[in-house]
Amino acid sequence: MMSRLRGEFDAGLASFVQGFPAEAAAGIYAPIHYLLSLGGKRLRPVVALAAAEAEGGEVADAMPAAVAVELFHNFTLMHDDIMDAAPLRRGQETVHLKWDENAAILSGDTMYTLANMALGQTQPDHLPVITRWFHQTALEVCIGQQLDMSFEDRNDVTLAEYTEMIRLKTSVLLAASLAMGAAAAGASAERQQAWHRFGEQLGLAFQIQDDLLDTFGGAAVGKQIGGDILADKKTYLWIHTLAAGGRDTQGIVEAWQGRNDDPVGKVDAIRGAMLAAGADAEARAAMDRHVEAALAELAGMGLDAGHLGFFTGIAQHIVERVS
Amino acid sequence: MMSRLRGEFDAGLASFVQGFPAEAAAGIYAPIHYLLSLGGKRLRPVVALAAAEAEGGEVADAMPAAVAVELFHNFTLMHDDIMDAAPLRRGQETVHLKWDENAAILSGDTMYTLANMALGQTQPDHLPVITRWFHQTALEVCIGQQLDMSFEDRNDVTLAEYTEMIRLKTSVLLAASLAMGAAAAGASAERQQAWHRFGEQLGLAFQIQDDLLDTFGGAAVGKQIGGDILADKKTYLWIHTLAAGGRDTQGIVEAWQGRNDDPVGKVDAIRGAMLAAGADAEARAAMDRHVEAALAELAGMGLDAGHLGFFTGIAQHIVERVS
Repeated sequence: MMSRLRGEFDAGLASFVQGFPAEAAAGIYAPIHYLLSLGGKRLRPVVALAAAEAEGGEVADAMPAAVAVELFHNFTLMHDDIMDAAPLRRGQETVHLKWDENAAILSGDTMYTLANMALGQTQPDHLPVITRWFHQTALEVCIGQQLDMSFEDRNDVTLAEYTEMIRLKTSVLLAASLAMGAAAAGASAERQQAWHRFGEQLGLAFQIQDDLLDTFGGAAVGKQIGGDILADKKTYLWIHTLAAGGRDTQGIVEAWQGRNDDPVGKVDAIRGAMLAAGADAEARAAMDRHVEAALAELAGMGLDAGHLGFFTGIAQHIVERVS
Repeated sequence: MMSRLRGEFDAGLASFVQGFPAEAAAGIYAPIHYLLSLGGKRLRPVVALAAAEAEGGEVADAMPAAVAVELFHNFTLMHDDIMDAAPLRRGQETVHLKWDENAAILSGDTMYTLANMALGQTQPDHLPVITRWFHQTALEVCIGQQLDMSFEDRNDVTLAEYTEMIRLKTSVLLAASLAMGAAAAGASAERQQAWHRFGEQLGLAFQIQDDLLDTFGGAAVGKQIGGDILADKKTYLWIHTLAAGGRDTQGIVEAWQGRNDDPVGKVDAIRGAMLAAGADAEARAAMDRHVEAALAELAGMGLDAGHLGFFTGIAQHIVERVS
């Protein structure tokens, strides 16, 4: 089911973006094609299509929403990479370095606009509810990014605050992808909400795994190695280490904070402190709890065996993935 | 009619944005409130409301579209000011200087999202056509900004290219405001198109007057004095001067290009060259032609005397305004 839906989505996305060629309009679409060409899991659009099918609809019903969430997600990457001064995205140069900041700002705005245009192709009956999900979610994603940036200057971020930040920055878009896919198939508001709750838990697990991979996963992520550590990001690992580590452990983290003169040494030292504080095991346990909550939600939805198996597999993949 | 509609719009905008207080969400809305507080003519939302009334509708029908276009317009100002490295907006510090670039990027994205949320409050019947106008226009505005930036490195921009750029960057948003206002009142597609044609001509006149005010209008514009000249902007005045001026005149423009060591001298010298080439008179004549085309469109629309007078007054105001 995954590879079929991935294939159908890739065709739908290609069909949509070919209306906006890289060489047109003084090159405004070129960074969009570049970023999309770097790949990515296409997790959000695939689950949107799968949710539509699980609710008795067709792939075509949810294709506008699927294209919209993938374009929106990539738009946020383009702008976040400027804000985070990130050099690499999926192992390749970020747009603001390959072009410049102005191109990344404006092509990002354009990509957001294309997302809205794609969504506008939703069947008119479902357009009001689906656009409401989309815009509400877009706002939450912006707030999540703002919280993330506001954490940079703080050392007292709690795990509860961190969880709320990643819920907004990451989980709600996965959750809304499912809800919008279901809505496109005519699912009730209650069922849309159930898909959303499932997606929120899945998204929280996904982000904790992302944090783990960034710190312990090595180069396979296609991002800067230990990028979160070098940027003093308040990840689950970082917060747990400061909160639960011994005084020595905390001292190591605090001593390296803000230092960038020895990147390799910093990553090694902080990784060691995190391991000493048991942060990796704690993060894995938290991830497992979110996956369990997601699967419990799924179990109550009365899906057929095929879709139950598909979404269970997605949840397992999130925990087991290496990139 | 103007002050009544302005008052109703201000109330509608205030009512919408009070749902997003400056102190909420780690301050993400603060730059939005700041930029809106700097004022502005509110021309686009007021004509949207007036077009709805002219088509037999109510102000309330078009309020979502009116709020959306004003938020969208201000979002583009926030991002354009980063791209243009502009220090002032309406005589006050720009958002990227008062906060920082990240805040201007993210609060701009948020403002665009709020525009979409406002638009979503349109009556469901009219939502598909109104969102289509909005997103198509947003895309054109992005392309207009891209063309504007791409002109920076070129000395061979023609008046036709310039006109197309300002049509996209400026005119279509005014035009779409009218078309969306009319659509919200249930106007036919043909009448929406007529409003759009009227608005395009009006918008072209508006931008040429903006160019004139930036170069010859002094500080009343609330922007940097001679900002276009200092930024080597390819305005109507600049293009005409290079194309029609004598060799001496062209030489002056070319000699100062790229120089920023003597801002006052540069503005004085290039202003002089523009006057010598008759660029100001030519720009005023072009502006008058666009106003005439707009009024001709208006005359064919069969409006009642009150609305004909109102929109004629708007056209005259654009030509005669000093800020």
